[in-house]
Amino acid sequence: MRIIVDAMGGDNAPQAPLAGALDAAKEYGVEVILVGRGEEILQALKDQGIDTLPKGVEIANADEVVDMHDDPASVIKKKKNSSMVIGLQMLKDGAGDAFVSAGSTGALLSAATLIVKRVKGIRRAAMGPMIPTKAGGNAVLIDCGATADATPEFLLQFAFMGSYYAKKMLGLSNPRVGLLNIGAEDSKGGELQKTVYPLLQKAGEAGYINFIGNVEAREVPLGGADVVVSDGFSGNVLLKGIEGTAMFMASMMKAMFKKNLLTKLAALVCKSGINDFKKKMDSRETGGTLLLGLTKPVIKAHGSSDAYAIKNAIRQAKAAAEADIAGDIAANIDKMMVPKELEHAE
Amino acid sequence: MRIIVDAMGGDNAPQAPLAGALDAAKEYGVEVILVGRGEEILQALKDQGIDTLPKGVEIANADEVVDMHDDPASVIKKKKNSSMVIGLQMLKDGAGDAFVSAGSTGALLSAATLIVKRVKGIRRAAMGPMIPTKAGGNAVLIDCGATADATPEFLLQFAFMGSYYAKKMLGLSNPRVGLLNIGAEDSKGGELQKTVYPLLQKAGEAGYINFIGNVEAREVPLGGADVVVSDGFSGNVLLKGIEGTAMFMASMMKAMFKKNLLTKLAALVCKSGINDFKKKMDSRETGGTLLLGLTKPVIKAHGSSDAYAIKNAIRQAKAAAEADIAGDIAANIDKMMVPKELEHAE
Repeated sequence: MRIIVDAMGGDNAPQAPLAGALDAAKEYGVEVILVGRGEEILQALKDQGIDTLPKGVEIANADEVVDMHDDPASVIKKKKNSSMVIGLQMLKDGAGDAFVSAGSTGALLSAATLIVKRVKGIRRAAMGPMIPTKAGGNAVLIDCGATADATPEFLLQFAFMGSYYAKKMLGLSNPRVGLLNIGAEDSKGGELQKTVYPLLQKAGEAGYINFIGNVEAREVPLGGADVVVSDGFSGNVLLKGIEGTAMFMASMMKAMFKKNLLTKLAALVCKSGINDFKKKMDSRETGGTLLLGLTKPVIKAHGSSDAYAIKNAIRQAKAAAEADIAGDIAANIDKMMVPKELEHAE
Repeated sequence: MRIIVDAMGGDNAPQAPLAGALDAAKEYGVEVILVGRGEEILQALKDQGIDTLPKGVEIANADEVVDMHDDPASVIKKKKNSSMVIGLQMLKDGAGDAFVSAGSTGALLSAATLIVKRVKGIRRAAMGPMIPTKAGGNAVLIDCGATADATPEFLLQFAFMGSYYAKKMLGLSNPRVGLLNIGAEDSKGGELQKTVYPLLQKAGEAGYINFIGNVEAREVPLGGADVVVSDGFSGNVLLKGIEGTAMFMASMMKAMFKKNLLTKLAALVCKSGINDFKKKMDSRETGGTLLLGLTKPVIKAHGSSDAYAIKNAIRQAKAAAEADIAGDIAANIDKMMVPKELEHAE
């Protein structure tokens, strides 16, 4: 298994991608190709006190770097020699089995769609992050911002893609697929939800997915569904709302423990519980977000990823490559049909 | 100041509305009219060990009750004699200054719009709940589900209404108005956000509102804006996502403190901090959500409201009546103009 890693993507490049790659190669037995400015990567290696790259880790040179100011849509034309574009090209050409980048989300999504391409029949690639839930599990939220405005056809396809993801990557035999909505009743929501609801219901009745109906945002962190289907705008709002609330509550908890000497002692007593808590809410544990609907696995790691997050993103990339979700999607694309009038015009 | 209270609305009626009304009358010096089944209310009074209604609290009889199964749109026709419809009619007729109900949200919104009516020129009433934020303050989220799909015109009006609300009810002289979006840059979001952004910017430049640009969901609990403008669908997702995350984290915190004898002792030590925490996240503290854009104040209290929540909703109703936000909206309606082609067709 060979994972291609964008060595120049993210706030901590190339140090974090390099260190994460070294750890992943050792821990997961994967080969890693670091794509980026060779000299900078080797310098970072020296800075870490290592003279030569270990076996299984190699460098593919790329002179340019995609940054946050690049227009996502024109990256593949204007930054042809960037680590992101070259890495995706290598993935397409079969030089590796999956690609990991902590670079610009928009650029990665756009370049991956143009280079790696969508599975035939899939209208939009989607971002499917995992959300920690109460029961100790995770839910897949699809989409969380790849496409702001969705059509019913997008949502139906997201439901299938999310279901395959949950089966293979979360190991659930019959994942519960819910439609993110603002009420439990069938008739709730805006035009989009009202139109897609019967399509999801039909797919459920046919046994293609396990559609459980609407799921309200409140139920998502409480484990109300394994797959949460949403347009990218609302999904992004939910994902970031959860993050912000977790940050807010963590800071209140900190204040609670810092009140006085006794509460500081209490914090020591609760240390293992606090650590469980932190681990549960730590996005670095997941590593990244899989872009679903592409022909090969592309993982978006968080821009602020450190070595630990990159290592986990590589673990996730390995799992995604083994899972071959693109294969599942391609084999079932004819089940994701919508009535002609609801088809998305390209 | 006279507050009309729906004595039959919510899961704990008539006990909670009655007890909340008695407390509010004593504590805030308001007169309260309890609308509902007189006998049931008097029985509830006896059950609380009180023989006669205190001065300032009276009953207006209404034989019917709106329940969760009633179709919201037809309540004013089919449940003419319900506590909700009669209470709203009394508000309209000037028998009181504000109306509080813990009954069905949809029915209240629909009946209030039809009876109390929107301020002339306002296209949609909006729900504006307060969200606790990190800095110790609150943010107004408008809309959170009164209307699922919004037009740019709705959002522009929500921005003004939310701003007046924050000025008068939160005491902010220049509330920061942000557009809920999935990125910080001007060009982010779906069609709706892209279209309304320049309109909000223009209103900001004219000095009508203090528009600070886009605000991501992550920043909302962290205090990134005082007024968060959103379509009802995404606003509802954000509000409930925050609630669900808070519930999830509270249950983890509980587990942390219940681990063993020492952690249970730690919980005792942290008691005051835990209470601050609980109070901050307790929706009963606010009492309810103001429906904005109507000619008179209508407060939706949570369906599960107890006496304490109802008491606070009555306090909020009093504040809303004193604030006369409807007056501000009416006086400034011509500032909320959108280009003709963006006007909402009724």
